[in-house]
Amino acid sequence: IDYYPKLVELFPTLLSVIQGFQFVDFENEIKHSISIDEVNVRPPYIPEKNIISVGKNYRDHAIEMDENRDEKAVPKDPVIFSKSPTSIIANGETVDPHEAITSELDYEGELAVIIGKQGVNFSEEEALDYVFGYTILNDISARDLQKRHKQFFRAKSLDTFGPMGPVLVTKDEVTQPDNLSIRTYVNGEMRQDGNTKDMIFNVPHLLSLLSTGMTLYPGDIVTTGTPSGVGKGYQPPKFLKKGDNVRVEIEGIGALENPIGEQ
Amino acid sequence: IDYYPKLVELFPTLLSVIQGFQFVDFENEIKHSISIDEVNVRPPYIPEKNIISVGKNYRDHAIEMDENRDEKAVPKDPVIFSKSPTSIIANGETVDPHEAITSELDYEGELAVIIGKQGVNFSEEEALDYVFGYTILNDISARDLQKRHKQFFRAKSLDTFGPMGPVLVTKDEVTQPDNLSIRTYVNGEMRQDGNTKDMIFNVPHLLSLLSTGMTLYPGDIVTTGTPSGVGKGYQPPKFLKKGDNVRVEIEGIGALENPIGEQ
Repeated sequence: IDYYPKLVELFPTLLSVIQGFQFVDFENEIKHSISIDEVNVRPPYIPEKNIISVGKNYRDHAIEMDENRDEKAVPKDPVIFSKSPTSIIANGETVDPHEAITSELDYEGELAVIIGKQGVNFSEEEALDYVFGYTILNDISARDLQKRHKQFFRAKSLDTFGPMGPVLVTKDEVTQPDNLSIRTYVNGEMRQDGNTKDMIFNVPHLLSLLSTGMTLYPGDIVTTGTPSGVGKGYQPPKFLKKGDNVRVEIEGIGALENPIGEQ
Repeated sequence: IDYYPKLVELFPTLLSVIQGFQFVDFENEIKHSISIDEVNVRPPYIPEKNIISVGKNYRDHAIEMDENRDEKAVPKDPVIFSKSPTSIIANGETVDPHEAITSELDYEGELAVIIGKQGVNFSEEEALDYVFGYTILNDISARDLQKRHKQFFRAKSLDTFGPMGPVLVTKDEVTQPDNLSIRTYVNGEMRQDGNTKDMIFNVPHLLSLLSTGMTLYPGDIVTTGTPSGVGKGYQPPKFLKKGDNVRVEIEGIGALENPIGEQ
């Protein structure tokens, strides 16, 4: 615990760690520990700029989102949009259902990639060099607003629509980002049961493409799309309502769990 | 000039002015002046987060962008997307044509609204209370990427795709934001000749809608769409090429001029 002042001096925020891309070895020096249950864990950090999101990046999800369940709905190029960083909340915090403006509240469990190094025009082979680590993002979406405004930004950017965390796992601990189980549960019922190996466009491809002509910066977040099994995909749809609990689990990262309800 | 240290101490950046929303009266105290030609004017500021953009907000532009020039292309609700703040460049700086990835480079002259006060769920009547001021933004767009990725984010967020400025005019000097002439010239040829009164959704409506469920923060930028006359609207299209010069003029704000060429 004596090292806390030094740590804070070196890294006032997690974003400063990501931007600095350096590590301090406290091995054999950490004497004090507390239980996770004794603290409120904040989101890993709030990015300064973009959450860049890729839509319809799992084949079965692209089809379930189509009115006619048509195979032609599978995109030939990534569908790229953004989500406001102001939507981010922590593990355990409450998602506002915004009942006054949406009646089609939905979840999307997603692997989120955190950029660690500034880069532009890098190849797929180089892409993972620019990654700092991984976390979980629940890309909460108002399906009616998504349809009404054509472009996705507003439907995915309402306050509290970006549960993120609970932790950020550095890339050295995620050796196979393209082979991770990803599951979403609503009130304990498994709704999504996918694997990142089923992405249409994998992480290196997405990062290389995004970096083409557009500089990526430390702290940028790239969310990589969601497997099938969102509420809108069910017939009839299973949208979220007040009192529900959504839990997203990704292998090697952890579980992100948030209640739905008025704040 | 003696007041410079004091000014910098009070306001290290323009963003700090906007966030502080206060003014210092230097009347009768400014003794030193230099010509605008002697300095490089930077963009008014770089926002920390979103540039929120509204697409197809002028009727004639909505129709010109439609393959069949169909009236049904006029949106019933605003098309809301975002543009990366990393795309911003200053008046006079060069727009990279990104020829390796686009052959359909286009301009869009737009009135940009700068938010000055944090707010959520405010009415149209209250909306202008949340405005700090206005500037010009040329929403450079790669039409082929816009089509390929379905959502607009990437096509409008490539490096240098956000010329902004030359100045930010505080709202007290723009008494009628809904009645301003807006014109775009390419190499001296007038391409766009519109007026903000022809917006489908006016500034108070857009700000009130955007604030519904999503908190707006000081420094956020809302771009309000472009009149007809973009390059894609001509038959055959008049896309931008290396060596071109684009000038956007908005009444009461000024002129934003940028060359197209390799950086």
